[in-house]
Amino acid sequence: MTSPDQLDRVARVALTWLFEPGHRAVWTLVQEVGAAETLDRLLGGDVPDHRLRAAVAARNAITDARRFAETALDRGERLGARLVVPADSEWPVRVDELARLRLSTTGRINQDTRPPLCFWVRGAHPLGPAMDRSVAIVGARAATSYGTHVASDMAYALAEKGWTVVSGGAFGIDAAAHRGALAAGGRTVSVLACGVERPYPQGNAALFERIAETGLIVSEWPIGAEPLRHRFLVRNRVIAAATAGTVVVEAAARSGATQTMSRVLALSRPAMVVPGPVTSAMSVGCHAILRGNPYARLVTSADEVLEEVGRLGEYLTEPPRGPDHARDALDEESALILEALPRRGASSPEELAAAAGLDVRTVLRRLSYLELAGLVVRKGDGVAFRLDSC
Amino acid sequence: MTSPDQLDRVARVALTWLFEPGHRAVWTLVQEVGAAETLDRLLGGDVPDHRLRAAVAARNAITDARRFAETALDRGERLGARLVVPADSEWPVRVDELARLRLSTTGRINQDTRPPLCFWVRGAHPLGPAMDRSVAIVGARAATSYGTHVASDMAYALAEKGWTVVSGGAFGIDAAAHRGALAAGGRTVSVLACGVERPYPQGNAALFERIAETGLIVSEWPIGAEPLRHRFLVRNRVIAAATAGTVVVEAAARSGATQTMSRVLALSRPAMVVPGPVTSAMSVGCHAILRGNPYARLVTSADEVLEEVGRLGEYLTEPPRGPDHARDALDEESALILEALPRRGASSPEELAAAAGLDVRTVLRRLSYLELAGLVVRKGDGVAFRLDSC
Repeated sequence: MTSPDQLDRVARVALTWLFEPGHRAVWTLVQEVGAAETLDRLLGGDVPDHRLRAAVAARNAITDARRFAETALDRGERLGARLVVPADSEWPVRVDELARLRLSTTGRINQDTRPPLCFWVRGAHPLGPAMDRSVAIVGARAATSYGTHVASDMAYALAEKGWTVVSGGAFGIDAAAHRGALAAGGRTVSVLACGVERPYPQGNAALFERIAETGLIVSEWPIGAEPLRHRFLVRNRVIAAATAGTVVVEAAARSGATQTMSRVLALSRPAMVVPGPVTSAMSVGCHAILRGNPYARLVTSADEVLEEVGRLGEYLTEPPRGPDHARDALDEESALILEALPRRGASSPEELAAAAGLDVRTVLRRLSYLELAGLVVRKGDGVAFRLDSC
Repeated sequence: MTSPDQLDRVARVALTWLFEPGHRAVWTLVQEVGAAETLDRLLGGDVPDHRLRAAVAARNAITDARRFAETALDRGERLGARLVVPADSEWPVRVDELARLRLSTTGRINQDTRPPLCFWVRGAHPLGPAMDRSVAIVGARAATSYGTHVASDMAYALAEKGWTVVSGGAFGIDAAAHRGALAAGGRTVSVLACGVERPYPQGNAALFERIAETGLIVSEWPIGAEPLRHRFLVRNRVIAAATAGTVVVEAAARSGATQTMSRVLALSRPAMVVPGPVTSAMSVGCHAILRGNPYARLVTSADEVLEEVGRLGEYLTEPPRGPDHARDALDEESALILEALPRRGASSPEELAAAAGLDVRTVLRRLSYLELAGLVVRKGDGVAFRLDSC
């Protein structure tokens, strides 16, 4: 007898095999009826969209999706890779914000940006907590020595302060970031666009082994999946969504890092860019992001990165200006946040953002003011009304 | 018999000798009663402020101010240096916007930022027209080869397109900018903090000679004035105010270039910054400006500089979006500008800015939209209503 939990897991793997991760229609159906029922309907041809039916039929003709999933889960277990699904406590909840991602650009890659259905994970640490205080450092494969030096230094400093460094495992900036974090004895997570059992590129094999020992190797794609070209772009949305902020160190014009940044900006997450010489082709993309996006932030050091991603003003270096007469002088955003706070107990910034209709970054900024104004207090990971203020 | 014009000239030179340029009280008095009467009153002790009286007495005791001025004008004539005053047609009118400069920082240097009383000029070209289409390129003396390369390249490209390159004649970035413009056979203006007859630093003597031949050497200080340390900071306000925009190429933290940029920003002029490696101490000031000022603009090429300073959308690369139904759908700023336009004849953007209570940059942007919307047409250096639109 298979448990509902097991059915859900098998279904999520099967669905990720039938359709690339992020597929809008599939994800929407999973939200509505669950993964197991979605798989049943798709395999039974019980969906109105004939294109979905045709796609499933074609793919299932190659290999039976359910059998594929069961085999992959077995193989994963043998290879030390576990499957993480939304019901698991280690699910990295930030990725679910992809559900509200709106990109103005067109094309399949920019439409199919829904949250992942599951993650394959190698490494001992629970995925969610590892991602909670994390910064992505990404950039060009054909990086210069300047770029790899900066990426590595920045990753070292962030890891030393207990932040997880997330990257894509590629040559150049990605590898330098992973190495910097490892050198600090810190945690690093490599988010791949292929199966976690054979990380790509092969040239970074020794690096991946070290990451798996102390950090995590993560992928949406099942064991055995090939690193197809378009998968890197699909993967980039996860790097953007799973982390507290993303730093681009070097990027050529219109590169993958630029695409990652468009997702970071669309998610209202801190989008940070390291500038470089204007004479370097590897900094053209960085400067273009800074010129084109008023919300992209130039950063030159790990400290400046922490100013952007630090919670509740933890790393804020500017003197916050609180309202003079506390509650009477509140701005609209702060008032919305106070309204969203429960009368009893605490709320996380993410919950407040959802309830107040604001982005998380705004909520975090406002909360630090509200805290200084004496209206809210921190409670565990969240905030609550100060008893004497309401 | 001395003409009123001659009395005004002598008085302005004498006043600049008695008080450093930019002096708030002196400039205000000159606006009220004229330069000759201001000098009479100051020398006669006929001013209420006892500190002004004491300063004049002390200075006049060293040398008689009027005699000093007459001698300086004679010497200037012999040395090929002419005096330019606001009544002259070649007065660079943009500097008068210093009258409305408000700086939040304190200290004498930041208070005494009034417009110049006069300019000493070496070089054949009229000063005003040379400054009309001009860009300042300034930066560190201890520049790196990267910085001098970028400054020189940018100056070359700007000069080639008919723009005057303005700088301060210092070693490093300033000299590279002057040289780049000269290499293009273009015009360059060196704004000094000492007498124009012996430009400082001496090590750039050959460069200054070449500038004087095809461009201009300019100073507020009379013939014989020493390049005292604080004068460079006083001079910087002129570089900021006389040009259509300023580019900082390399700057150490809290350097003179940073101070110049604070004036550029306070004047609402395009404040442009070239980034560099975050590992370079000579780019620390540049990145600090970009991080600290939302209106500072990262630029990587002469084309991007021209986008910022180009008039009436001449160099605008973004597609301008005009109102759909022309006059009916005007935004508030455009409406103010149309109201400020005279029923007959043309107005310059500067006149429109003053009349509409907007900054010149906003006016220039709006005018390009109004022109595309078919509501205004260019006429000489200004704009006028299109006949069939009103």
